[in-house]
Amino acid sequence: MTKKNSLEFATIEELSALLARRKVSPVELTELFLGRIERYNPKLNAYLTVTVEQALAAARRAEKELTRRRPAGSHRPLLGIPITLKDNIWTRGIRTTAGSKVLRDFVPTEDATVVRKLARAGAILLGKTNLHEFAYGITTNNAHYGAARNPWAVDRIPGGSSGGSAVAIAAGLCVASVGTDTGGSIRIPSAMCGIVGLKPTFGRVSVFGTVPLAPTFDHVGPLAHSVTDVATLLGLLAGRDPLDPTSSAHRVEDFSAALRKPLRKFRLGRPREYFWEKLDGEVRRATEAAVRDMEKHGATIREISLPHLSESAEAATNISLAETRYLHEMAGYFPAHADEYSEEVRQRTDAGGKVLATQFLAGLAVQKRVRAEFDAAFQDVDAIVAPSAPVTAPLIGADNVDVDGEQIGVRAALVGMNRPANFTGHPAISVPCGFTRDGLPVGLQLIGRSFDESTLLRIALAYEGAHDWRARHPSLD
Amino acid sequence: MTKKNSLEFATIEELSALLARRKVSPVELTELFLGRIERYNPKLNAYLTVTVEQALAAARRAEKELTRRRPAGSHRPLLGIPITLKDNIWTRGIRTTAGSKVLRDFVPTEDATVVRKLARAGAILLGKTNLHEFAYGITTNNAHYGAARNPWAVDRIPGGSSGGSAVAIAAGLCVASVGTDTGGSIRIPSAMCGIVGLKPTFGRVSVFGTVPLAPTFDHVGPLAHSVTDVATLLGLLAGRDPLDPTSSAHRVEDFSAALRKPLRKFRLGRPREYFWEKLDGEVRRATEAAVRDMEKHGATIREISLPHLSESAEAATNISLAETRYLHEMAGYFPAHADEYSEEVRQRTDAGGKVLATQFLAGLAVQKRVRAEFDAAFQDVDAIVAPSAPVTAPLIGADNVDVDGEQIGVRAALVGMNRPANFTGHPAISVPCGFTRDGLPVGLQLIGRSFDESTLLRIALAYEGAHDWRARHPSLD
Repeated sequence: MTKKNSLEFATIEELSALLARRKVSPVELTELFLGRIERYNPKLNAYLTVTVEQALAAARRAEKELTRRRPAGSHRPLLGIPITLKDNIWTRGIRTTAGSKVLRDFVPTEDATVVRKLARAGAILLGKTNLHEFAYGITTNNAHYGAARNPWAVDRIPGGSSGGSAVAIAAGLCVASVGTDTGGSIRIPSAMCGIVGLKPTFGRVSVFGTVPLAPTFDHVGPLAHSVTDVATLLGLLAGRDPLDPTSSAHRVEDFSAALRKPLRKFRLGRPREYFWEKLDGEVRRATEAAVRDMEKHGATIREISLPHLSESAEAATNISLAETRYLHEMAGYFPAHADEYSEEVRQRTDAGGKVLATQFLAGLAVQKRVRAEFDAAFQDVDAIVAPSAPVTAPLIGADNVDVDGEQIGVRAALVGMNRPANFTGHPAISVPCGFTRDGLPVGLQLIGRSFDESTLLRIALAYEGAHDWRARHPSLD
Repeated sequence: MTKKNSLEFATIEELSALLARRKVSPVELTELFLGRIERYNPKLNAYLTVTVEQALAAARRAEKELTRRRPAGSHRPLLGIPITLKDNIWTRGIRTTAGSKVLRDFVPTEDATVVRKLARAGAILLGKTNLHEFAYGITTNNAHYGAARNPWAVDRIPGGSSGGSAVAIAAGLCVASVGTDTGGSIRIPSAMCGIVGLKPTFGRVSVFGTVPLAPTFDHVGPLAHSVTDVATLLGLLAGRDPLDPTSSAHRVEDFSAALRKPLRKFRLGRPREYFWEKLDGEVRRATEAAVRDMEKHGATIREISLPHLSESAEAATNISLAETRYLHEMAGYFPAHADEYSEEVRQRTDAGGKVLATQFLAGLAVQKRVRAEFDAAFQDVDAIVAPSAPVTAPLIGADNVDVDGEQIGVRAALVGMNRPANFTGHPAISVPCGFTRDGLPVGLQLIGRSFDESTLLRIALAYEGAHDWRARHPSLD
């Protein structure tokens, strides 16, 4: 299913097999990635903190554990796998900046729930990755810690807010990562960097111990090289958490097992409105080709209608502006430390103080209506197919992008495709679907039924299996 | 248990027995009440609409049904009982003004869920009762339909917003009524008029088909002469309703059966803060005497603490101002028809347009905290005991009342004691606990565990059984 890759670009699946057969050791792997971080991170700025000593110590422990036990039937599916965490996820004893100056010295005394789960699964933490300040933006052009750079073109953004996570995976500086997604923050950088990123169903993964942005839309999820890896990670991260009252008690299936049952027939909904209306020519070419590829591999394409979706932008903006401002006030960040905010994030936080309660309530009403429209669509289709972004990675510092001849704000363009699934809470995945002539990755987005990530992942795998783009790697030297 | 009363002041329990034994007929009863309405309503203004013809027709049908069947084991526990509905509860084909000018000609094409339930139980609808404009106030000094008057002193308010319902019961113009309670609107008039009123647990009774005020705090519930009657009505009204997504699927016990098991021992919590701090001298005397009476009849009194309750006033005000404004905007009432609002309600609706989303979110956070404080208190006590109001019925038109030497706004004084249970969603009942030297009724409030109205009603009955104030009636001529 996966092509043979050099170690630095190998998947969890491939590395686990090699580790189990002692073809490589956790210490060798960790040293490989630490070496690459030393060499390439100055250029890419994917990491804010590299936990060298802890990573090597964890690798040595993993090594011992691997020699002691029979790997088959292991309950430590990430044993020896070097990963990263977006730096808005609490790590006990390791500073967690959320990409902000306000939290530059914040060292949590507790791990986020997902961090405990990853540690229990045996993962080795290489470090904390760069992100947009407070996860409140999509460029990862961080005013305090420097811009993260797209490994496919270092003058371009990697997307965000989980930009550092996507860069680290795409550049072979870690195997996988966990990020957060409030308006596309996992899927946008996954698309821009040519990797796979999943925003699970709302409530599927505990948000306890992540610096909140807008709780109505906040999600935690995995970024990785392949659909199979993302499924493995989701299985480890998912589940009800008493520390997160918004987490769901919904049963967690064995997503990896689900992927072993290939999907021969499925129905894809192609929205008449919104998603396919305005795209860059090369993005349109690549995503349309992907839809045709899927038709060849089991998909029936149906046109669906989401007539109220266009109202979601204003509604979601009002809800998230207000929630973020409220949380920053409650935490004592704003306006107390307003001078430590970048101009861009300060303006947005400031605007959150002007949203009226009636606008907030109107936003919730739109959310209900649009969610019902999506649920109705899922009566007829198994997933909705859309581009992950209307353009490829914009230049660092660009305010606008050209979309099919029209100048659109970078933020609006990238968030526009992704926020619908945050707004409705449905799971959504971005998978690579090709490259432009300039060698920039293009992403395809699939949105699935609530709490049916199994079907969503199987559809994503059907495409990936038919057309894997992973043979190509960015040249970093 | 209940004293012998003349027919017009008899309870559902007493009348049902008389109807079953053919000592009185539904038509006689209906004619008795219609006659009294004709005679006393011009003075009291309890009714906005009297449904004379429908009531007589329903009485004749009930009469036939009573002669046909054996009353024992009847599933029509209100067969032949004349009741009223607050005029913000939809009645198919009967105008439903919500006490507003905007809705003066509104004739619903559907019944509220509670109306269907009452009809199914056999109740006879005498008419729709006066209320504060849009239920948005507590005096029932209605600018459009005239002030409802307290039968114990017609220059005084009956309280509100369900003022007409309480007046009609207290003056013997109906047997029982159903009202709504968003900040005390069932309990305040019950206390002012010397009757029993219950605000059930949030979600216990469907609000479908009631003109909404502030959905986070809106409740529908019964007003009647006795605790037993209130229990009978609650049993009929309660239950999950697919038409009201906020209604709860919590099991509906047989509340009447629960009352037949007397409570010998129970624990009452007396809050250290808030409720008992500032009371009119005569109210203090009557309510303190009631607490001592309860001690003699099985209660152990414990002091409890609700330290954050004082924050609830601002929080609840922000939430309800915003929700009401939002709904009035959505319905097209405001600002389109602002000139048809009374000055008082217009000002409040206007203010709702200024609440910030961050204030709304802060209010929800306070709600969570205060609800947790109440739930913690209920680990140690079976009910919380408090006055239903810090004063007896104020004069019509008064802006302020004297509370123990201090001038306080009428609205703030009356809402202050009642809104806590709307804020937390716990069930709360007001029962009569005596009269002042001027002959004005005083109310005692009991607040119970969520979805445990059975215990709350049993405690209320323990007091009522020990000290029934129902022998006294207002003189209306």
